[in-house]
Amino acid sequence: MNALIVGRYQPFHLGHLAAVREALESCERLIIAIGSAQYSHTRENPFTAGERLEMIYSALRAEGLYDRTNIVPVIDVNRYAVWVSHVRSLVPPFQTIFTNNPLTQRLFSESGYEVRQTRIYNKEIYSGSFIREQMINGGDWKQSVHPNVSDIIGRFGGVDRVRELFYLSGQHK
Amino acid sequence: MNALIVGRYQPFHLGHLAAVREALESCERLIIAIGSAQYSHTRENPFTAGERLEMIYSALRAEGLYDRTNIVPVIDVNRYAVWVSHVRSLVPPFQTIFTNNPLTQRLFSESGYEVRQTRIYNKEIYSGSFIREQMINGGDWKQSVHPNVSDIIGRFGGVDRVRELFYLSGQHK
Amino acid sequence: MNALIVGRYQPFHLGHLAAVREALESCERLIIAIGSAQYSHTRENPFTAGERLEMIYSALRAEGLYDRTNIVPVIDVNRYAVWVSHVRSLVPPFQTIFTNNPLTQRLFSESGYEVRQTRIYNKEIYSGSFIREQMINGGDWKQSVHPNVSDIIGRFGGVDRVRELFYLSGQHK
Amino acid sequence: MNALIVGRYQPFHLGHLAAVREALESCERLIIAIGSAQYSHTRENPFTAGERLEMIYSALRAEGLYDRTNIVPVIDVNRYAVWVSHVRSLVPPFQTIFTNNPLTQRLFSESGYEVRQTRIYNKEIYSGSFIREQMINGGDWKQSVHPNVSDIIGRFGGVDRVRELFYLSGQHK
Amino acid sequence: MNALIVGRYQPFHLGHLAAVREALESCERLIIAIGSAQYSHTRENPFTAGERLEMIYSALRAEGLYDRTNIVPVIDVNRYAVWVSHVRSLVPPFQTIFTNNPLTQRLFSESGYEVRQTRIYNKEIYSGSFIREQMINGGDWKQSVHPNVSDIIGRFGGVDRVRELFYLSGQHK
Amino acid sequence: MNALIVGRYQPFHLGHLAAVREALESCERLIIAIGSAQYSHTRENPFTAGERLEMIYSALRAEGLYDRTNIVPVIDVNRYAVWVSHVRSLVPPFQTIFTNNPLTQRLFSESGYEVRQTRIYNKEIYSGSFIREQMINGGDWKQSVHPNVSDIIGRFGGVDRVRELFYLSGQHK
Repeated sequence: MNALIVGRYQPFHLGHLAAVREALESCERLIIAIGSAQYSHTRENPFTAGERLEMIYSALRAEGLYDRTNIVPVIDVNRYAVWVSHVRSLVPPFQTIFTNNPLTQRLFSESGYEVRQTRIYNKEIYSGSFIREQMINGGDWKQSVHPNVSDIIGRFGGVDRVRELFYLSGQHK
Repeated sequence: MNALIVGRYQPFHLGHLAAVREALESCERLIIAIGSAQYSHTRENPFTAGERLEMIYSALRAEGLYDRTNIVPVIDVNRYAVWVSHVRSLVPPFQTIFTNNPLTQRLFSESGYEVRQTRIYNKEIYSGSFIREQMINGGDWKQSVHPNVSDIIGRFGGVDRVRELFYLSGQHK
Repeated sequence: MNALIVGRYQPFHLGHLAAVREALESCERLIIAIGSAQYSHTRENPFTAGERLEMIYSALRAEGLYDRTNIVPVIDVNRYAVWVSHVRSLVPPFQTIFTNNPLTQRLFSESGYEVRQTRIYNKEIYSGSFIREQMINGGDWKQSVHPNVSDIIGRFGGVDRVRELFYLSGQHK
Repeated sequence: MNALIVGRYQPFHLGHLAAVREALESCERLIIAIGSAQYSHTRENPFTAGERLEMIYSALRAEGLYDRTNIVPVIDVNRYAVWVSHVRSLVPPFQTIFTNNPLTQRLFSESGYEVRQTRIYNKEIYSGSFIREQMINGGDWKQSVHPNVSDIIGRFGGVDRVRELFYLSGQHK
Repeated sequence: MNALIVGRYQPFHLGHLAAVREALESCERLIIAIGSAQYSHTRENPFTAGERLEMIYSALRAEGLYDRTNIVPVIDVNRYAVWVSHVRSLVPPFQTIFTNNPLTQRLFSESGYEVRQTRIYNKEIYSGSFIREQMINGGDWKQSVHPNVSDIIGRFGGVDRVRELFYLSGQHK
Repeated sequence: MNALIVGRYQPFHLGHLAAVREALESCERLIIAIGSAQYSHTRENPFTAGERLEMIYSALRAEGLYDRTNIVPVIDVNRYAVWVSHVRSLVPPFQTIFTNNPLTQRLFSESGYEVRQTRIYNKEIYSGSFIREQMINGGDWKQSVHPNVSDIIGRFGGVDRVRELFYLSGQHK
């Protein structure tokens, strides 16, 4: 049985990793869809899809989990009525989706998929927006991510980028 | 003489129906454009264009008005400078537009169309956002729509959908 | 039971009308999707979606069939994997599709719809490309369409447009 | 050496003109990119790209600066990761970009361009949003723009348009 | 009176230049729209819009004509029904269009513009496809373009690019 | 050092596998981009991006190569001038690209990447179009693909789909 899990992974943190581990307990393979893949360099979406893929790959490989996963960037279509078909065409066949989001639950269950939830792991510090805030304020964001992920973020100057995007008064135009 | 009327119809309510009836008094045929046709499953736009078309069709047919109307979903182009041309290419020829919106008035009058207004009918309860609120709070939303429309909304679980979309904390990603 | 039928209707001819009549024998309502709705002013697609809608409306209304149909322009998505979802979101609910095209058959049956075929009616002269050729060569194209359709084509100078598009040596750029 | 400068120019004001003049002191030619070229008829973007181009042309020509500039409308791509390539493909070759926006600075310097800043000129009154407010409130917006620009805005009824867009309660749909 | 002229300018040749000169005899300003601005690196469209703009600018400036022109890249919309509106929103106001293409003539005259033709200049050698062939076969393509244009093409390796694109057996994928 | 390789993989055959193996000899990790990811159900592109990803994954995992690869679907942008940026934003960082296509070579080398070629492996039978022909004619297409790939194609009825698409007389519209 293959399963799907969807996130934006801005960045990929230990809560995401725990959810992946939990999902892999009940499926043979897990497809990890990176949503909003077209965005980068914004406050909510600082990292490119490729950078997020790199984070996930390096964490999963270090943990010996990569072999049973596919990591797939998915550009938004902004039309919920075709979103399930769009995702389905870009990823290997799957039967189950793990999600805690009620809309995703509704859209996939209306399309005949089995929907399951994952536990929530340490929600306060395993959270994308918390991590981005810590980066801005000089807090300890590294406690929330896998060491490989913090290395990668360091390598491409991710913290500086998040800070600059925060201090931007407006759009680039 | 053909006329155009544009709305999102989320859902189609008795105020819309009264405006259609009023417009039909002064034109032979009325083209009803369903705007923002690409959206569904959001708080402001819970219903698909097809579901909205179904509501309008069933109400107009019951009232004996369908024969003199065309109901046409129109996907947004998000560029006001080409919006009039976009609409014009998707609907039968028309000479007049009924609208109470100043921007629509300006765009169509700049393109040489006759612009007219319709009366506002019982604005407090014949209002899309009021109806969606009543659905969420368990209020009497059915008083605001044609009985056929409430039947249709019931048939595809529309009230549950509106409620779920309201309780969603965020996006599905 | 509602059914769907899809065509480009360049123009809407008597073969299309016969297929609509045939389909209406076995369904309560028929949704007529006008495909490639974004195109006009090309050799293969001379008429706008709105002009095609006008043709279909005027023929069906004259024949007393309009009440049981919906006519819906559908812009292409150019991705077969999401095409069924795209169509479904723009039209009222349906259970059956009438089509003689093997790909459409495959796409809709994979999505769980009942697929039926219609008879082929007088294929030689009830054909869009034949009619467009007759328009160019001054032949008797009117025999292939409903009188209301030929009136409408006359009213917006459709024959001249088809001829001009034929004599165009290249693109407009 | 060619340089690039980017703005929305809603409208083109004397601060923009001063920045163009300053940039032209250190380059042979200046390419002026009109960003968000697809927008018009909104509060933040009342003027079409063509109207903005007309304003810039008439001011620069009157000042004897046009010969050393190119004015190029650029439609948004809404993906920062491809934005630099998008701009580069639409304008003549350049080596330097003048910008005071930190994100634009980052995106272009990551792509190997020299980034420079211009001085800020009389920020209070040489400001698009200030000028639009003055237009709404009947204030002296003309002091902030070149006389040719105020003539052009007058000729196409720009002040009325800005006011109408302000008083619009909602969207046109 | 302002006028518009549209071309792909792959590359800008002496026939184009003569047409510009002819048009400028009967208008105050001429807007030169670079069509299919999104294409480059294909056989029919080897040069980017920016490179084409550079060619036109350098020829017109050398000939003392630039002051009375605007050069504007226009990305295709691939929908003839909105094409005129699209162009109109991106360029300064104009009343007349110079074109020898029957479809462009039809589209603009249907929208109320005055349509004029230019003479055809030395069609055999002042032709984009002829010039591209000469580039491939080592022929004398320089006789067909302004000396500044051949300099520019030389500077960015344009001839090599055209040749490589010709010898490509297929797509890059 | 990371490297990139791009293909459409319709289907993934033994020539592709040999090229992957060859590339992995000189890089640490190989990113395999599945081009034209938006297409499926056409003659040239019968399989969805997800099905192609499944083929590649199952072959690489069986061969013990998966750990050092990322498989990433990439939707076309149809603008060569932004194509490199588009790809770069969707995949992990890389320094080298393996390609035998002259246009891809030109586009990536202009962007500063090292470009290498792979050997061509048994071109006659390790070819997408040859394999699709064999599927249509009942030939031995399985000799050209990894056993896992033929299993997967069998599982979703891929041969029947390729045949049906071949026998389609026209478009579905």
